[in-house]
Amino acid sequence: MGTLSHVVVDWGTSSFRLWALDRTGHVLGERRSAQGLAASAAEGFEAVLESHLAALGIGDGVSVMMCGMVGSRSGWVEAAYLDAPVRLDELAARGTHVPSARRLIHILPGIAQRDPIHPDVIRGEETQLLALARRGHDGLACLPGTHGKWVQLTDGAVARFVTFMTGELFQLLRERSVLAPALQGGAPVDPSSPDFSAGVADALAAPASIGNALFALRAGWLLADRPADAALARLSGLLIGLEIAGARERLGAIAAVTLIASGPSAALYRQALAIAGLAVPDELDAEDCVRRGLHEAALIAFRLERVSR
Amino acid sequence: MGTLSHVVVDWGTSSFRLWALDRTGHVLGERRSAQGLAASAAEGFEAVLESHLAALGIGDGVSVMMCGMVGSRSGWVEAAYLDAPVRLDELAARGTHVPSARRLIHILPGIAQRDPIHPDVIRGEETQLLALARRGHDGLACLPGTHGKWVQLTDGAVARFVTFMTGELFQLLRERSVLAPALQGGAPVDPSSPDFSAGVADALAAPASIGNALFALRAGWLLADRPADAALARLSGLLIGLEIAGARERLGAIAAVTLIASGPSAALYRQALAIAGLAVPDELDAEDCVRRGLHEAALIAFRLERVSR
Repeated sequence: MGTLSHVVVDWGTSSFRLWALDRTGHVLGERRSAQGLAASAAEGFEAVLESHLAALGIGDGVSVMMCGMVGSRSGWVEAAYLDAPVRLDELAARGTHVPSARRLIHILPGIAQRDPIHPDVIRGEETQLLALARRGHDGLACLPGTHGKWVQLTDGAVARFVTFMTGELFQLLRERSVLAPALQGGAPVDPSSPDFSAGVADALAAPASIGNALFALRAGWLLADRPADAALARLSGLLIGLEIAGARERLGAIAAVTLIASGPSAALYRQALAIAGLAVPDELDAEDCVRRGLHEAALIAFRLERVSR
Repeated sequence: MGTLSHVVVDWGTSSFRLWALDRTGHVLGERRSAQGLAASAAEGFEAVLESHLAALGIGDGVSVMMCGMVGSRSGWVEAAYLDAPVRLDELAARGTHVPSARRLIHILPGIAQRDPIHPDVIRGEETQLLALARRGHDGLACLPGTHGKWVQLTDGAVARFVTFMTGELFQLLRERSVLAPALQGGAPVDPSSPDFSAGVADALAAPASIGNALFALRAGWLLADRPADAALARLSGLLIGLEIAGARERLGAIAAVTLIASGPSAALYRQALAIAGLAVPDELDAEDCVRRGLHEAALIAFRLERVSR
């Protein structure tokens, strides 16, 4: 195990993850918390960061590379978007410098697609692709989430991307809509559930009818006391199926996709992509990817000598 | 002007509308309030109804015909669904009797579609079709709303219907989603706005991509400070366009549709249906239709002699 080289942080709307790395990218220590943007803004971003560094015994002078919503307008310092298409190593080199008396801190920029009809933004997820691009990976990647992304990587650059509000729609419908009573108490969705699969297949076959398929969850509860587990699995399947249908509509025929996911969504998307007939030759853990991408960015931005493990 | 014959009430989730009618259906008096289900359950349904009758000076013995969510599980008395296909005059004859010492009170049943894949329910809107069916009207009707309905009328019967959560999605996205800041303060949607029209056209052309089109409203605000009026008009257009695309997916080719709407949604749907190339040979006011339908139901259920105006 090497000695501490630098620190990387993925700081999002609702979570904070920090890793202390050696020069090879090996993890020497880590911290996680639910200190998202709102909580951190109240406490002070620098105070939050320094408290986690202190907890790991990391002193002044150690550089920090960050990504995520911490670089948004409502974050610590705004890291302006770069325009797509953009090389991922350029992203690393053009981080925004955060004033600090104690250490060098950079926030990676997000990427903007300034299409007047289909404007889009990505901030955080693109870092997951940095390590991939470095390894010469090309093609389409699917990154599930609150605002899931489909990103076309070409020659080390983000050529194009498309965001879908899938995760947010799931939460809104589950918690705030007329469907809530039909979904209440539903168990976490089982990817092998026939209700999940049927939802995926139905949304792929009739994506325009989503507004009706959603209401049918309520009707099924009213008329047939359909259990919440089944309704929740179907809701998840419908929304993921709709996303895949939308990705095909926006990006044209898709043969294969790299899946970059963590937690329960990985298995759900693996299953849904299989139902849609999309090959998934590579599946990567999203959290590993963001850590490796931040490490890659730190090597570039802080001009650290690259050392193989 | 005739003498008081009966009273009709449309009692929904969030509103109460009552009309005192003569034998021809002419309006002798009316009451409106925001006493929806929750408020009325707390105060007592009978107390709410009687207070409005008293305010119009209507004594004991006058019969009342009601429709809407007042007949749901969480209403006054549950009026069980009849199964589609069902004749609309049968609906009138099979109202649920509400116990009252002071008058005869009926609540009209809703209609259930017990399709295991696409279950659906309607409760209240079907009453708008009763007067139409009585006049021998056939064909497809579009009834915009929180849960908008497309209803196929054949030989005086509701043959089939499809519900879309359009209005509810609009409210959820406007108030509760990440789009809220981009929409905040937006003026009521102008049906002639190019943003509305473009939203309709884009959703018709690429309905599966709705999850991306929605996120683009946020991206347009972040990247180009797109004004809230434009974003709100586009959101409305996207969701109505999606509904029309879904109606086509569920019902097959549609040449013409009767539009039954009230208030601002009438003009929005008229415009959207035109963009989609659907003829609208008849447009009716939803509130007129529900009153006339309730009158028709009262004539049937209370065996009142039909008198022409």
